[in-house]
Amino acid sequence: MTGLTRFGVSIPDSLLGDFDRLIGRKGYQNRSEAIRDLIRDSLVTEERREGKREMVGTIALVYSHHTRELSRMLTKMQHDHFQTILSTLHIHLDEHNCLEVLVIKGKGEELQKISDRLIGIRGVKHGKLSLTSTGKNLS
Amino acid sequence: MTGLTRFGVSIPDSLLGDFDRLIGRKGYQNRSEAIRDLIRDSLVTEERREGKREMVGTIALVYSHHTRELSRMLTKMQHDHFQTILSTLHIHLDEHNCLEVLVIKGKGEELQKISDRLIGIRGVKHGKLSLTSTGKNLS
Amino acid sequence: MTGLTRFGVSIPDSLLGDFDRLIGRKGYQNRSEAIRDLIRDSLVTEERREGKREMVGTIALVYSHHTRELSRMLTKMQHDHFQTILSTLHIHLDEHNCLEVLVIKGKGEELQKISDRLIGIRGVKHGKLSLTSTGKNLS
Amino acid sequence: MTGLTRFGVSIPDSLLGDFDRLIGRKGYQNRSEAIRDLIRDSLVTEERREGKREMVGTIALVYSHHTRELSRMLTKMQHDHFQTILSTLHIHLDEHNCLEVLVIKGKGEELQKISDRLIGIRGVKHGKLSLTSTGKNLS
Repeated sequence: MTGLTRFGVSIPDSLLGDFDRLIGRKGYQNRSEAIRDLIRDSLVTEERREGKREMVGTIALVYSHHTRELSRMLTKMQHDHFQTILSTLHIHLDEHNCLEVLVIKGKGEELQKISDRLIGIRGVKHGKLSLTSTGKNLS
Repeated sequence: MTGLTRFGVSIPDSLLGDFDRLIGRKGYQNRSEAIRDLIRDSLVTEERREGKREMVGTIALVYSHHTRELSRMLTKMQHDHFQTILSTLHIHLDEHNCLEVLVIKGKGEELQKISDRLIGIRGVKHGKLSLTSTGKNLS
Repeated sequence: MTGLTRFGVSIPDSLLGDFDRLIGRKGYQNRSEAIRDLIRDSLVTEERREGKREMVGTIALVYSHHTRELSRMLTKMQHDHFQTILSTLHIHLDEHNCLEVLVIKGKGEELQKISDRLIGIRGVKHGKLSLTSTGKNLS
Repeated sequence: MTGLTRFGVSIPDSLLGDFDRLIGRKGYQNRSEAIRDLIRDSLVTEERREGKREMVGTIALVYSHHTRELSRMLTKMQHDHFQTILSTLHIHLDEHNCLEVLVIKGKGEELQKISDRLIGIRGVKHGKLSLTSTGKNLS
């Protein structure tokens, strides 16, 4: 918990008008919240670029459960990285396809490597890594 | 289930050498699997660009559970979109911070809108939308 | 030319401290300018997403000038789209490789199509589309 | 100059059908060229991620030429980095707005820093960095 500061921003009227319309469409209640979100997003982008900071994120894997050995392999690899993979959510998309969402925590560049490995497993149709902040330095 | 086709690709030796090293580091067992992944990824990128196809994905939200009314608000908004939000996974990151991962399904452009709305809620520190395929057209 | 407005932003001290460090490293003279840049960037991202607004941008193409017919083909295609391609800059990277940078103007989705076509030409090793604003609505 | 290798890829029929439709729309003459482009793009993405390899690219800057001292400042900063900034192309977008495209060459992470500095200059409305390969290792 830290204190609050208030600072002023000078901005051309027409630019402010466009911004107000954009954040209105996005459902923001006020400008301060929208500006804080832009600031936090710029910090998270920087963390991601550095690769050295601890982050959290998701790896979404789409695969067919008919692929022989795939589930067993995925489970094994997840246990190999049990300190990084916090939790897993499994969704049955249709008769054939599964979506498995892994929640992960670690340095950006390590999460990238684990993601590459999982996506590379034969039978995984598509995979996507998405990283965000642990929230610690976004007070 | 469809049949398999085999086709040939001509490629300069040195380019193939670099590609083999890259997919080796990523853990691929063979080139065919790596090529199929590149093909599937190009199709998913296109789906995302169009915005009209049904996709699945995740919205990761980081927030402090101390923020008054936030949990109630998030739950309410998720129920408003219950047909799109398939499931939710909640992780306790530390004493203050939560990570909530929503699994979503719908047209790309609608998922973008819901994501914007959720990320715009006061108290959500950071949010990230990540979309992938339903697997249907990635047989 | 429009007038200037000044508005206040409330922000936790520690978040502001992190932001000040980030913008210091990036060479910003003051917070207002950094905030205006974040605002303008969010507007450009939105324009890009919509695809219907007029934008400007670059297509960077890397290719070997030894590839038979490629230069002629590139020149022909650029003349087919002469209303969209404003100017071209050519760099000799080494004995074999050229970089050609095309400056383009048009609707986002059309620029994407022209870029796809050019990158698809046999002999183009790599290509990259990058879009920004015409500046008109970023007063 | 290196030799050519031909290798086979096995792929489900329906996935191949979707891919053929996609590359047809993008104007590819044959599958080999489309696959080579995917391979080269995966290598460039990796180079960009590492940040240590020499790359080329563009920085597009949009600004109003009415902003006092901006042109002088941009010219000065470009001369400070004359070894990295190979060439500059200037476009008059309208009565007020200019687009300046800088062609740059250097390590990915250094190009990122120079881009941050230029975009941070007061009066630059929007800027965008886009990196591609020098072509050397994409024979």
